[in-house]
Amino acid sequence: MTNFKLIVQYEGSRYRGWQRLGDTDNTIQGKLEGVLSRMTGHTVEIHGAGRTDAGVHAAAQVASFKIRTDRTPEGIRDYLNHYLPQDIGVLSCQVVPERFHARLNAVSKHYTYRLWHAKTPNVFERRYLTTWEGPLDLEPMQQAAALLCGTHDFRAFSSVHRRFKKSTVRTVEKIEIARHGGEVRLDFVGDGFLSHMVRILTGTLVEIGGGERDPASILRAFDSLDRQDAGLTMPPQGLILTAVGYPSDR
Amino acid sequence: MTNFKLIVQYEGSRYRGWQRLGDTDNTIQGKLEGVLSRMTGHTVEIHGAGRTDAGVHAAAQVASFKIRTDRTPEGIRDYLNHYLPQDIGVLSCQVVPERFHARLNAVSKHYTYRLWHAKTPNVFERRYLTTWEGPLDLEPMQQAAALLCGTHDFRAFSSVHRRFKKSTVRTVEKIEIARHGGEVRLDFVGDGFLSHMVRILTGTLVEIGGGERDPASILRAFDSLDRQDAGLTMPPQGLILTAVGYPSDR
Repeated sequence: MTNFKLIVQYEGSRYRGWQRLGDTDNTIQGKLEGVLSRMTGHTVEIHGAGRTDAGVHAAAQVASFKIRTDRTPEGIRDYLNHYLPQDIGVLSCQVVPERFHARLNAVSKHYTYRLWHAKTPNVFERRYLTTWEGPLDLEPMQQAAALLCGTHDFRAFSSVHRRFKKSTVRTVEKIEIARHGGEVRLDFVGDGFLSHMVRILTGTLVEIGGGERDPASILRAFDSLDRQDAGLTMPPQGLILTAVGYPSDR
Repeated sequence: MTNFKLIVQYEGSRYRGWQRLGDTDNTIQGKLEGVLSRMTGHTVEIHGAGRTDAGVHAAAQVASFKIRTDRTPEGIRDYLNHYLPQDIGVLSCQVVPERFHARLNAVSKHYTYRLWHAKTPNVFERRYLTTWEGPLDLEPMQQAAALLCGTHDFRAFSSVHRRFKKSTVRTVEKIEIARHGGEVRLDFVGDGFLSHMVRILTGTLVEIGGGERDPASILRAFDSLDRQDAGLTMPPQGLILTAVGYPSDR
């Protein structure tokens, strides 16, 4: 068996997310596994670094799978691109050591949330942006972002069930918030993000930018661990998995 | 009556083009006129600078129309953006002198043809690119572009019918061909372009870049005025109306 690593780009708009759900193949994982199974003649299981939700996009999702094949990595990449739908594209395929696992070995993730904040629409990029019509004052958002960075229990900023036993402690290394023309872009880098965490962090920051919430409310949410103390869950379409980091990249 | 000038952006993918065709309103002009007629309560006719074909996009199409209204230009812009479908957006609306006519007063047009020329796909921008799989040597393309510039009878590079009486002489001011990563972008600026002219010029240049045709073949086509002496008509989806120039801009 040879272990392969893929870098995959997708527009998530018409999918139920990365993770295959039983029989339905209307997921990115399902589409990739379907083409790989067709190529090899047997069932292939693929592991993605980040389980992006329905409607979330990826600029460079990482995935790994083991198959027996005589094809070159470039041959596999081209086969996948030939049979995948146009909204999923394989940017690279390479042979990796047997022990590489896209999800278990990932040490950092970079997510970007793109807000469109202008008086006129952005037609060409509309599928990758969430339009926000309220005021957005970047300074308090940046103050709150500084409070969010570091190692904290982010349970309040997630949709993780209260009775869920696994740790909800994560380290957020960096949150950058910047305006680029009509766009306000939020970049989040951390060792991992809980379910809906980037969308809830963005919703909380957006409420702070609109003056509905003060930056110190972040500390209350860290303290209470209560979802009610965090902001709204932003829609998926402005969210992009931008990059995944591995120890070997450092 | 007040005369208004609009700058309009659209993704042409699902439209039959700019120009309204009788009853069907599946055109950009039809959509804009529909919303303006709804706003004013009477029929409004709108004039576009360039009659883009089915599937062709515009970053900044210019259009003008006369109506009686108490609304401000910003109010009209916002009304249009509220009722137009998401793939059409109004970037600006302003009051212009009574004699301004978007098509008749235009003195230059800038069209861009975007070719995707890479081993891996571009998922996010795929709707605005034509993928080209053959070789593309930019140097002969640039030589041919230099021959195309200037004032010529471009009949061979158009779908204009032989018996069509109007002049097919046009001045091409500039053709720039450059690689930007996986993209080869062709920018055409001229006083006007005939039906299908940018797509046929691009097809001719692409054949030259692939070695199927030599740059001097341009001169034969100028001489014969025969469509057979020019290259293929490229698909509409890589074509964008980038800008329209007026004397007042100079």
